[in-house]
Amino acid sequence: MSQFWSPAVQALTPYVPGEQPAERVIKLNTNENPYPPAPGVGKVLREFATDHLRLYPDPTSQALRAALAESFGVETQQVFAGNGSDEVLAFAFQAFFCHGAPLDVPTITYSFYPVYAKLYGVELRQHPLNEQWEVDLDALAEASSRSGVIFANPNAPTGHAHSLATLEALLERVTDRVVLIDEAYVDFGAESAVALTQRYPNLLVTGTFSKSRSLAGIRLGYAVGSRELIEGLERVKDSFNSYPVDSLANCVGIAALEDPAHFEACRERVITSRERTRSRLETLGFDVLPSKANFVLAQHPAFDGAQLFAGLRERGILVRHFNKAGLENFLRITIGTDDEMDSLIEALETLIR
Amino acid sequence: MSQFWSPAVQALTPYVPGEQPAERVIKLNTNENPYPPAPGVGKVLREFATDHLRLYPDPTSQALRAALAESFGVETQQVFAGNGSDEVLAFAFQAFFCHGAPLDVPTITYSFYPVYAKLYGVELRQHPLNEQWEVDLDALAEASSRSGVIFANPNAPTGHAHSLATLEALLERVTDRVVLIDEAYVDFGAESAVALTQRYPNLLVTGTFSKSRSLAGIRLGYAVGSRELIEGLERVKDSFNSYPVDSLANCVGIAALEDPAHFEACRERVITSRERTRSRLETLGFDVLPSKANFVLAQHPAFDGAQLFAGLRERGILVRHFNKAGLENFLRITIGTDDEMDSLIEALETLIR
Repeated sequence: MSQFWSPAVQALTPYVPGEQPAERVIKLNTNENPYPPAPGVGKVLREFATDHLRLYPDPTSQALRAALAESFGVETQQVFAGNGSDEVLAFAFQAFFCHGAPLDVPTITYSFYPVYAKLYGVELRQHPLNEQWEVDLDALAEASSRSGVIFANPNAPTGHAHSLATLEALLERVTDRVVLIDEAYVDFGAESAVALTQRYPNLLVTGTFSKSRSLAGIRLGYAVGSRELIEGLERVKDSFNSYPVDSLANCVGIAALEDPAHFEACRERVITSRERTRSRLETLGFDVLPSKANFVLAQHPAFDGAQLFAGLRERGILVRHFNKAGLENFLRITIGTDDEMDSLIEALETLIR
Repeated sequence: MSQFWSPAVQALTPYVPGEQPAERVIKLNTNENPYPPAPGVGKVLREFATDHLRLYPDPTSQALRAALAESFGVETQQVFAGNGSDEVLAFAFQAFFCHGAPLDVPTITYSFYPVYAKLYGVELRQHPLNEQWEVDLDALAEASSRSGVIFANPNAPTGHAHSLATLEALLERVTDRVVLIDEAYVDFGAESAVALTQRYPNLLVTGTFSKSRSLAGIRLGYAVGSRELIEGLERVKDSFNSYPVDSLANCVGIAALEDPAHFEACRERVITSRERTRSRLETLGFDVLPSKANFVLAQHPAFDGAQLFAGLRERGILVRHFNKAGLENFLRITIGTDDEMDSLIEALETLIR
């Protein structure tokens, strides 16, 4: 605590990301992709005209946004690019959710949302998941007088994804404020709501290059929505940092989008490994929630989650454990290579023997 | 305007950066360095292990901060790194200047400060420059009940820099709130106040790799201050975006710091060209403010600034013109290569003939 800090900043409880260990471990804790980015990314770095770095980037990331727009079948003006989807989400909180009414959000979802809410003074109205550990869209839609609705689909850390039809039913009911669907994990088997942005001017869909594009290290995220929503994000961005996406990230993102074959191959491998991992965990007696993401959430009826987490850590395997009501006994396990998942299963076999 | 925007965001007037033209022009409008970054930067890009981009960056930028700390002779915990000094400044506004009292600022300084103030609801108390176009430190210090003090040194767009002794006299008088000295341009001949951070726990000095390190395209900025001020910035950053500095930017920044000879050579060339340009502009009848930055602010008693700006633009030379009270007749001219400055002088000769 410091007398120099703004009062609101004294009251913050910052987000704590999964650790980035220095030593060699099997890292299944931050939902990174086990496969490398598209080969074109390496080519961009090797051939980049370094002199060009003396100039500022394009403040509007026009070329990257055009490439994203083409891949989604929307207009460039319907796409916003930022320094990771975390930054895009922060801008969205400030742009759309500061209306002096509560923001409807599931109790269990990406744990950064309550941190943003505190940062921008947004009150949260939290809705428990239903009995199937799914985001309760009915509960989210029912509330009146709100500043907006936000959830992840697939949700984190459960991995459950609602269908497009179910999402559209929500959008038919919530029309007065922004509905933000965070699709960080959508490419691992869920349906994207991007097409719905053409019909629902209050729908904002966010996404990231960190997971399915294997580019967590470059910090690149985006949002797709109506022009008026994108303009709202631009107003905040242009009042915060004219150039959040650097010159290299702009080129790297385009290179990733230009290799759909690599993208398809990597996500299929992750999906196959996920289903194989789920089945092997179930054989060990774990309850595993069905997942459309690049992780699974699993608990064992006879073993404590925190102890399993610690036991895996001792064996050089990092997974994620959340000290949060309802999740205490679960492990969130990122899907790595098959070799890594074999090591995980072997370690768990030892721990529950 | 949109019903979906938060009321405060509806009222924003975003910052407008100098343009980044697509066509080939002589670009003297955004204070970029005309010389390339250190050769080690190109080596980093060519040799970077692309696979590593699948992993998140170090959220604390430990290695980069350690390199900066070493170059400044301070502890790593006294250094903060962000996505350009624009982001660092935004975090500082939120961390230190939201105390429900006015922020003391010169009327003429970096024009992003009033934009941040609007974004975070900070009231500004603006103090005119003195008759020599210098930041009036007495006026800034005199006020009571404030949320802080901010100015650039060298100031933008005047180029004037106060001495270390004068800055210290201000710090002796303002001890209750943060004094933020923005040193974006300090390496072109001014004295840095970084050493004073060891004695004044309320002094925050910000800097950037964009100007003297020729890395505007990579988005890298920093702050140096007491541990408690750095922790305040970290609280905001960790509530906004866990990883604002990407893996490449971290390595590129270190490579730039590891080449002091390149750094010295480039800044000396800029300083020499600046003094040469100043003298030639004066020969043409311009009033040129003495500058310690990589730009000069100049006006001609017989010619309109806006017209000269337009005339240069027609001739493929971009400079900056501000529609701001007191600055209407001035041009802010970035110092380019000697060839570029020759072209500028020739064009001006034609325009004022």
